[in-house]
Amino acid sequence: MTDETHDPSAVSWVDGAGPGSDFPVQNLPLGIFSEAKGLRRPGVAIGDYILDLVSAADLLDEEWREDLSQPILNAWLSRGPETHRALRQRLFELLTDERYRDDLEVHLIGQSEVRMHVPCLIGDYTDFYVGIHHATNVGKQFRPDNPLLPNYKYVPIGYHGRASSVRPSGEPVTRPRGQRKPPDAETPDYGPSRRLDYELELGMWIGRGNDLGQPIPIGEAGEHIAGFCLLNDWSARDLQAWEYQPLGPFLAKNFLTSVSPWIVTADALEPFRKALPPRAQGDPQPLPYLDDPSDRASGGLAIQLEVTLTSARMRSEGIAPHVLSRGSADAAMYWSAAQIVAHHSSNGCNLQPGDLIATGTLSTDSDEGLGSMLEISRGGKQPLTLPTGETRSFLEDGDEVTLRAWCEREGAVRIGLGECVGRVVPPA
Amino acid sequence: MTDETHDPSAVSWVDGAGPGSDFPVQNLPLGIFSEAKGLRRPGVAIGDYILDLVSAADLLDEEWREDLSQPILNAWLSRGPETHRALRQRLFELLTDERYRDDLEVHLIGQSEVRMHVPCLIGDYTDFYVGIHHATNVGKQFRPDNPLLPNYKYVPIGYHGRASSVRPSGEPVTRPRGQRKPPDAETPDYGPSRRLDYELELGMWIGRGNDLGQPIPIGEAGEHIAGFCLLNDWSARDLQAWEYQPLGPFLAKNFLTSVSPWIVTADALEPFRKALPPRAQGDPQPLPYLDDPSDRASGGLAIQLEVTLTSARMRSEGIAPHVLSRGSADAAMYWSAAQIVAHHSSNGCNLQPGDLIATGTLSTDSDEGLGSMLEISRGGKQPLTLPTGETRSFLEDGDEVTLRAWCEREGAVRIGLGECVGRVVPPA
Repeated sequence: MTDETHDPSAVSWVDGAGPGSDFPVQNLPLGIFSEAKGLRRPGVAIGDYILDLVSAADLLDEEWREDLSQPILNAWLSRGPETHRALRQRLFELLTDERYRDDLEVHLIGQSEVRMHVPCLIGDYTDFYVGIHHATNVGKQFRPDNPLLPNYKYVPIGYHGRASSVRPSGEPVTRPRGQRKPPDAETPDYGPSRRLDYELELGMWIGRGNDLGQPIPIGEAGEHIAGFCLLNDWSARDLQAWEYQPLGPFLAKNFLTSVSPWIVTADALEPFRKALPPRAQGDPQPLPYLDDPSDRASGGLAIQLEVTLTSARMRSEGIAPHVLSRGSADAAMYWSAAQIVAHHSSNGCNLQPGDLIATGTLSTDSDEGLGSMLEISRGGKQPLTLPTGETRSFLEDGDEVTLRAWCEREGAVRIGLGECVGRVVPPA
Repeated sequence: MTDETHDPSAVSWVDGAGPGSDFPVQNLPLGIFSEAKGLRRPGVAIGDYILDLVSAADLLDEEWREDLSQPILNAWLSRGPETHRALRQRLFELLTDERYRDDLEVHLIGQSEVRMHVPCLIGDYTDFYVGIHHATNVGKQFRPDNPLLPNYKYVPIGYHGRASSVRPSGEPVTRPRGQRKPPDAETPDYGPSRRLDYELELGMWIGRGNDLGQPIPIGEAGEHIAGFCLLNDWSARDLQAWEYQPLGPFLAKNFLTSVSPWIVTADALEPFRKALPPRAQGDPQPLPYLDDPSDRASGGLAIQLEVTLTSARMRSEGIAPHVLSRGSADAAMYWSAAQIVAHHSSNGCNLQPGDLIATGTLSTDSDEGLGSMLEISRGGKQPLTLPTGETRSFLEDGDEVTLRAWCEREGAVRIGLGECVGRVVPPA
């Protein structure tokens, strides 16, 4: 599905929507915003602006207006890909054709003037673990000779996370308290986490759902993914190490999850799909319910990823953010987005519009592409040094972590996912 | 807080609300019901009837009516215990005083004539693991010498479950498909679970929530619990054994969770509270954030529990349900309801009105009080025999499992939680 909305020569009449922007007219992600005293409502990002879809509703199909005037996008997402493509085509037309400029300019608001919100009421948030290098790196810290468990290459491992504490980029990261038991301590105590970490992940927003008891076949899974975002799965490693047996991480994770606010549609990412790498020799083929020719041909996502850190001192001294990692999603993911969705519903579990599903930490196999401090500092044993000379094994109060993602290749216009930011503050 | 609403001599004028009923006037649980073509709306159980709180709204405080006319009880639950007590007192007055009989009888509907629903829109569902004998029994199957992990007596272990697949009692239990890898198989395959099981649990409905970053102190935790229900955490043991490392159970559980439809309030259970047993010698005292004098004095719930099974053949031959277990909640729970809530929010995680929190499987330390087939059949090694001569290691298609719970003691009127039923059907 490449059509005129991917035409690399198309340019919007909106300022700042040119090459290099995260939000050219080939992107057109939806989000929920509000002005100082205004209601939450849907908008589309274009350049440095948001087109207000409520005030501009006269220019849209009448049949879309109710769902595009809600403070959450669940109903809109439930409509499925055909309708989403029709909106994309209409917005592309409006934002490239100079004749609409006078009508539409009044409905543009600077992105810096609004507040962005989590775009959906999240029924369920699920976190997967498809970053095989992350799983290997973490596994090595516990089992040097056998880092990956026997199920990893058969089962897209995932678990349920906390929906209530998913917050938009920019919300403060309050250092959680919890039970901490260092290996040399006899008993645990309760206090602020000493090993606060971030995790670089992608999120998927579910569009159309499925009924309970009706698995989504792998060949249809892509049609259920409305779009993507960045996601930071903030993690308290000391709480995690002590609590996670036998039922998995809980309080180590559910104090906060941050998402970038824009739903970058599967359509916008279409030019950046690529074949999944063939399974390495010795690796099992996916079971049939996880195997699909079209997914094999185009299930990979060539999304570039970057994480930076700024300490309080760096900010006060005007020092630029320090790059913690650079990598790409397709180099990190052992299972594709479609495999994740097919597996999640393979037992009949019902996904619902607006559900959030994350990939798990996306690390590449190189030291430059590690998606968490746990990996970068080798479990705290090799602190990194910031430009100020400060060192970090884990995050300190005042540290700000920024996730960024974008797609670019010859012959296509660069598409951005925006950014996902959080700054650590001490507990109240 | 015992008041006139616990007066054992009080009797309702409603038929069937006498001694032995699950729903005497000392109970008064809320639920959401609908008639054949009617809307979902709140009602209160009394004897064999439901009092329709929408049609009877004129007799209630005007200020309550909006929240008590919704199709979900979230807004009502958010109001907190004072308001809930005021409704309880008003309903008690209306349903015991003969003078209201003529006005109210028209608003009574037979429970057998309605359909009950999940009473809240569940923002998050969390499952704990506080049944120490269950944890020990299951642990023994994996680690005979060391069944309980080192964190168990410090951390109320819990994990997030699936909100979308929580269903009311009576919904069919579709046998899930998934990856199965018997110990003697080289590789897994995908097909219907061969080890389908139930788990006997209590559920708690959260009333008032807490803000993100603001833990609920243990001394206030009880005020955040609006009420209790029965919960069946259906489990596919073969899927679970293969998938659960390292992030916990996922598809083995999230295909269905059944709840009894009535929210039995903390107030109704007040006469059945008891002291928590002191920690056994050698067991650690709870950390201060989990320790509270009033919880120690009255945090135990003397709730009787029973599980029965009926096979298709037993039904066709008219044979009575077979009792699988009988026990009590206070004999099963290592951590109290208040400790569960305090721990869940101890890292700042925000609970919301209508959240569902389950205890985990409640087994006693005797063979008569085991809360799952996994325990009864010793992991499938010792099948049980039904009155028909049929044997069961796990559940077969057509099997119906019924959970029941009630409280009784000298000097108080018996209170029931109702029942939670599910019948296994083959996958589509």
